[in-house]
Amino acid sequence: MAGNTYGSSFRITTFGESHGKVNGVVMDGLPSGLMVNEKEMSDDLILRKPGKKYSTKRNEDDIPEIISGIFNGKTTGAPLTIIFHNMDVESSYYERNRFFPRPGHADLPAMIKYGYDNWDFRGGGRLSARETVSRVVAGSVARKLLLLKGIVVAGCVSSLGDMEFGMVSLEDCLSSRRRELRTPSDSYEKIAEGLLQKIISENDSVGGSVQIIVRGVPAGLGEPVFDKLKANIAYAMLGIPGSTYFEMGDGLKQSRSRGSEMMDKIVNRDGKYSWVKNHSGGILGGIATGDDIFFRIGFKPTSSIPRVHDTVDIRSGSAVEIKIVGRHDPSIVPRAVAVAESMACILILDQLMLSGEFRKPITDDENRIMNELWKTYQRVESK
Amino acid sequence: MAGNTYGSSFRITTFGESHGKVNGVVMDGLPSGLMVNEKEMSDDLILRKPGKKYSTKRNEDDIPEIISGIFNGKTTGAPLTIIFHNMDVESSYYERNRFFPRPGHADLPAMIKYGYDNWDFRGGGRLSARETVSRVVAGSVARKLLLLKGIVVAGCVSSLGDMEFGMVSLEDCLSSRRRELRTPSDSYEKIAEGLLQKIISENDSVGGSVQIIVRGVPAGLGEPVFDKLKANIAYAMLGIPGSTYFEMGDGLKQSRSRGSEMMDKIVNRDGKYSWVKNHSGGILGGIATGDDIFFRIGFKPTSSIPRVHDTVDIRSGSAVEIKIVGRHDPSIVPRAVAVAESMACILILDQLMLSGEFRKPITDDENRIMNELWKTYQRVESK
Amino acid sequence: MAGNTYGSSFRITTFGESHGKVNGVVMDGLPSGLMVNEKEMSDDLILRKPGKKYSTKRNEDDIPEIISGIFNGKTTGAPLTIIFHNMDVESSYYERNRFFPRPGHADLPAMIKYGYDNWDFRGGGRLSARETVSRVVAGSVARKLLLLKGIVVAGCVSSLGDMEFGMVSLEDCLSSRRRELRTPSDSYEKIAEGLLQKIISENDSVGGSVQIIVRGVPAGLGEPVFDKLKANIAYAMLGIPGSTYFEMGDGLKQSRSRGSEMMDKIVNRDGKYSWVKNHSGGILGGIATGDDIFFRIGFKPTSSIPRVHDTVDIRSGSAVEIKIVGRHDPSIVPRAVAVAESMACILILDQLMLSGEFRKPITDDENRIMNELWKTYQRVESK
Amino acid sequence: MAGNTYGSSFRITTFGESHGKVNGVVMDGLPSGLMVNEKEMSDDLILRKPGKKYSTKRNEDDIPEIISGIFNGKTTGAPLTIIFHNMDVESSYYERNRFFPRPGHADLPAMIKYGYDNWDFRGGGRLSARETVSRVVAGSVARKLLLLKGIVVAGCVSSLGDMEFGMVSLEDCLSSRRRELRTPSDSYEKIAEGLLQKIISENDSVGGSVQIIVRGVPAGLGEPVFDKLKANIAYAMLGIPGSTYFEMGDGLKQSRSRGSEMMDKIVNRDGKYSWVKNHSGGILGGIATGDDIFFRIGFKPTSSIPRVHDTVDIRSGSAVEIKIVGRHDPSIVPRAVAVAESMACILILDQLMLSGEFRKPITDDENRIMNELWKTYQRVESK
Repeated sequence: MAGNTYGSSFRITTFGESHGKVNGVVMDGLPSGLMVNEKEMSDDLILRKPGKKYSTKRNEDDIPEIISGIFNGKTTGAPLTIIFHNMDVESSYYERNRFFPRPGHADLPAMIKYGYDNWDFRGGGRLSARETVSRVVAGSVARKLLLLKGIVVAGCVSSLGDMEFGMVSLEDCLSSRRRELRTPSDSYEKIAEGLLQKIISENDSVGGSVQIIVRGVPAGLGEPVFDKLKANIAYAMLGIPGSTYFEMGDGLKQSRSRGSEMMDKIVNRDGKYSWVKNHSGGILGGIATGDDIFFRIGFKPTSSIPRVHDTVDIRSGSAVEIKIVGRHDPSIVPRAVAVAESMACILILDQLMLSGEFRKPITDDENRIMNELWKTYQRVESK
Repeated sequence: MAGNTYGSSFRITTFGESHGKVNGVVMDGLPSGLMVNEKEMSDDLILRKPGKKYSTKRNEDDIPEIISGIFNGKTTGAPLTIIFHNMDVESSYYERNRFFPRPGHADLPAMIKYGYDNWDFRGGGRLSARETVSRVVAGSVARKLLLLKGIVVAGCVSSLGDMEFGMVSLEDCLSSRRRELRTPSDSYEKIAEGLLQKIISENDSVGGSVQIIVRGVPAGLGEPVFDKLKANIAYAMLGIPGSTYFEMGDGLKQSRSRGSEMMDKIVNRDGKYSWVKNHSGGILGGIATGDDIFFRIGFKPTSSIPRVHDTVDIRSGSAVEIKIVGRHDPSIVPRAVAVAESMACILILDQLMLSGEFRKPITDDENRIMNELWKTYQRVESK
Repeated sequence: MAGNTYGSSFRITTFGESHGKVNGVVMDGLPSGLMVNEKEMSDDLILRKPGKKYSTKRNEDDIPEIISGIFNGKTTGAPLTIIFHNMDVESSYYERNRFFPRPGHADLPAMIKYGYDNWDFRGGGRLSARETVSRVVAGSVARKLLLLKGIVVAGCVSSLGDMEFGMVSLEDCLSSRRRELRTPSDSYEKIAEGLLQKIISENDSVGGSVQIIVRGVPAGLGEPVFDKLKANIAYAMLGIPGSTYFEMGDGLKQSRSRGSEMMDKIVNRDGKYSWVKNHSGGILGGIATGDDIFFRIGFKPTSSIPRVHDTVDIRSGSAVEIKIVGRHDPSIVPRAVAVAESMACILILDQLMLSGEFRKPITDDENRIMNELWKTYQRVESK
Repeated sequence: MAGNTYGSSFRITTFGESHGKVNGVVMDGLPSGLMVNEKEMSDDLILRKPGKKYSTKRNEDDIPEIISGIFNGKTTGAPLTIIFHNMDVESSYYERNRFFPRPGHADLPAMIKYGYDNWDFRGGGRLSARETVSRVVAGSVARKLLLLKGIVVAGCVSSLGDMEFGMVSLEDCLSSRRRELRTPSDSYEKIAEGLLQKIISENDSVGGSVQIIVRGVPAGLGEPVFDKLKANIAYAMLGIPGSTYFEMGDGLKQSRSRGSEMMDKIVNRDGKYSWVKNHSGGILGGIATGDDIFFRIGFKPTSSIPRVHDTVDIRSGSAVEIKIVGRHDPSIVPRAVAVAESMACILILDQLMLSGEFRKPITDDENRIMNELWKTYQRVESK
């Protein structure tokens, strides 16, 4: 089966492995005339970037190179292909441990699926989260187009371990772009920093969740029955490495509540209908209501903690202990925000295109507007 | 867009409305030679059936009629089409209230999407959960084929409101088939009955969750990256009416835990590798591990509680109060179990077929085996 | 595999067998608000109808019954499902000859694929051209929507055996609707009648070709590379029973010519660019040019001629002679025109929807316009 | 829309432009364990290569570089990505003539679709036949896997202008690999050389056709109704640049014949059923019969002949004459053979995978067998 393509009208195909030559993405279906450049893409890429205080020390330079689809700085309607040359790949640990699948990783099912001898085990190969660099750059391109339609996608870390960061607004999410741990406020950031330092000192890791808010999606987007907008979002989010649950709106709370507690009111706000409480998170019956769409994705704690893990030697089938060493993130959640945002951007763009948007070339005026909005939107000071 | 088709190699298309002539389903891609009959399908349909003590009083007879794809009692390789004639449809309430969208339903987004004048508002039209009768009958056919491969799909209600039914085994799930409220034990059933009686007496409703366990899926099924097996499951489950969250394995707990708490061990059990704790719910990196696959789906409380709801009159845009009357389920969760099981059966069959299974006609021997297993499997005494 | 669904944004799924209960089609993705009624559909169905002078005597009543997707005479946005109850099905010939596959039919590959015991051999089962009644009714619905965009699809018989009917205009095609043999002029009709009478008297059959012209497709529709508009048309046309070749524009002639003979000129006609000779048939590089799209489909002579055919007895594998008796068309080509037109309508509608058209409900004004155009378009006097 | 991806279980996505940095292809769905190397791929690439006596003088080095999906010389189950660095790209002609669309090319529809300012006109950009280098390398990989199943795909030039090369056997097709003009015999090659020299001297070009034979496809492959095997082949072939018609088996002849002339016989040849005349080209009702599958694709004469062409200046809309200069092939047909073969290989592999084949890793033994067969198959002396 061929599972490396996502989307329908806007369709991305990613390729590459953790320790291979490159990672990359083909973006198909983009309108022509869209200004794109490698520098601009870095604004989002940096938010996924490791090598900062609380994440892996791997020196991923993450410099995008456009190898097709562009002419005079604009898209042409042809597939836009971007690659990242992999650097700083040291595979000796993986070579030494290739017969000992790590319990919390997909090593063993991958070995079974692809054959013990065939799969590229170095750094998790194709199954490494390194692949998400391709998603983030594609999301970055999609995000620009969404801005043109007045749609803003923003996210933040909404919980770390048992620490909940409470109700989060779109502004909180946007503000998180300047915080390394992507928390919704400066005070939460301090708390999160303290937690992660403790986690690191204990050779441990911690799970958490990401909140995404999408403002500006027109009412009526999405389909009822199987292809519900929320089903599409769930699919995109559960395709992110390490994801473990998906909650639409106040979904968890709803499942634990009475109908009388979850009653909502439709009101008319200057001609726009709106739900006062929006428990459903902006989607009813699979169709966008026009209110903010919001959802949460849970992530598990990093499995590769530097402890002794019990596993098997696949040559003999006998039990063996392995010690995982080297760099790892105390939590993948802060970096997952950029990935979840990107998948949301890609998905919403695809749905908009299916509904008939972006069917004409982008004009110079539109490019100007997008570039303005982009600058406003990007306030990343955490370089 | 066309969102009424689900699946790839095994593909179902449903049609029909709550108060229209029929509901139905076209099943495409089934192997030829499979014995099917309308009577057998009723075993699963009855579990979704309303008209029992704690659910709507609508007299849905749910009698399946096969109108294509069968010859001498067996599938032919042509699309298997099954319809249900709708009965007992009284639309006067909906006629009277057609301009007042119900806040917790998709009435208003549907009106916006399809046009105030066009959409079939009677009983929610296409967006009614009545549509799920088609999914259950398709799941029933898929389930038989899964049994042939040693795969069992079973589910139960795992929580109602704030009442949790704890860890649930496959056997608990299977046992729930003989309980009207689909709880995992007789004692839980009593508690649930008490809760629902209270809910009814208070003109209220309650949310909850469904647990599904799939045993026997071969290690290696599913793809990494976008098309992860867990992403596919999330898509299928969030496509069920009223669903609000999806949790893979111990996903919620994982997101709140330390890596050290979630460490797992791979062990060799007589030549089969297995994870001792299976926190990931039988899927790692999007690929089945060979262990039990388990997940949970959350459902919101029924919105149509018999109270006064605040909404708008779409003719004038002004505020209006409506009183919802008539039958409603105090909780949709018990009936949702059959729907979630069915979607799981359909999905796993599709994935198996994509991986190369069921590519030859079913033999008489295989039919015999399936019929035996079916009888063992079906122990429904709650008629 | 599941091959009974066609299309992407506008998607049809057909079901049913020649001698089964029904034939039918689910149309998914139609805009809401479109007026449809069973009577109107008959205008196109009659052109496919057998039971006339030169075709099978089977009494196919072809009365469409809408069983879902309609409310107050208009589409709702839900799947529009239409069934035809099969009548006049006499299977005794097929029962007697079930072990003797007919050489020019798909009997033997179907037996191999589905199992000798499983496939529904009666009248060819699912592989019968009876299935095309579903396509014609779907095409009829699609055609109305195309009229709204100023797109006209028309076809005629362009050759019968070695008899060529020369260059054909859109008007010729439209005029063929009132001729039983769908030839482009009254004089050709006489000739064709003479040919078919001779063919019948000689217990023979004859092949031929259908020409389709599509006027009004906007320049720019379609994609380059794999998903070319002409590739999509070829796929749709080679999916018609009995089809044997596909020619885009002057394709056959082009392949036999010099570049100097096939040179074309682009001219500016009042602001609209046009190709003077249009050898390419309105598509260049897979993209519509804005000129008329035209193409031809070849059909083989009916295989079931009343002669002795050499085949095998699949029980023993030994040679056997069979005599085919009963009704058959001396040529399927006249009836194939309606099917090819319908597939063209379905395909163009799907492509238009992918390009962003028909994304809003149909208004009353639009319905009025379509109904006017429909009446103008339908001038069928050959009842 | 996103039209740069082909296939379902085996899925290729191509990218790149004529004068851009690279051309390339992502192959998704390949089994793991397959030995591939860049040198081997050259065997097929050379057959598409220009720069020989009768084709363009462009120095396309066509050196494939694998940038993902490989580990220790074998596929890993991850996407296999191959790029070609473009060289020898001189765009000044296109710069000078960018406002004058060439009549026989897709320049004008592409300008309309993508915007006059946006599309990459250099060498036809994405619409250049340069893109087919990606298809040929993908076809080369697919071809190896087909050999393992005993399936051979071979083609040759079957006509040039009005010169027909008669009935062609599989052996003739294979032998054509050592002839520059891909004709089926040495004597035809001489004739073709004479014709092309004349064509060149007259500043002209000529169309023609390609015949493809596929031996070894198992009976039962393919689906009836819409997704017929022949419909899939037609789609793949009409997606090749310059293609103008598609003929399945003796399709053209069949459309001009009587049923009595086209009667066929099924015979039992040592347990394998076969059709004596195989007029249908190995497919009946959309399903493979087990006999040789054969078909023809027509190609138009190269449009870019060095003459004066009448077109428009898109800035003013006024008429203008252009002189096309520089290299061009007198006929694209010889080079199209490799492309048509490749698309056939890709398609058949995809269909086989959909039917359940190649679902396990390739073993060392299988690699050995394939490498042996590959050597036997490749007898290219025309370097």
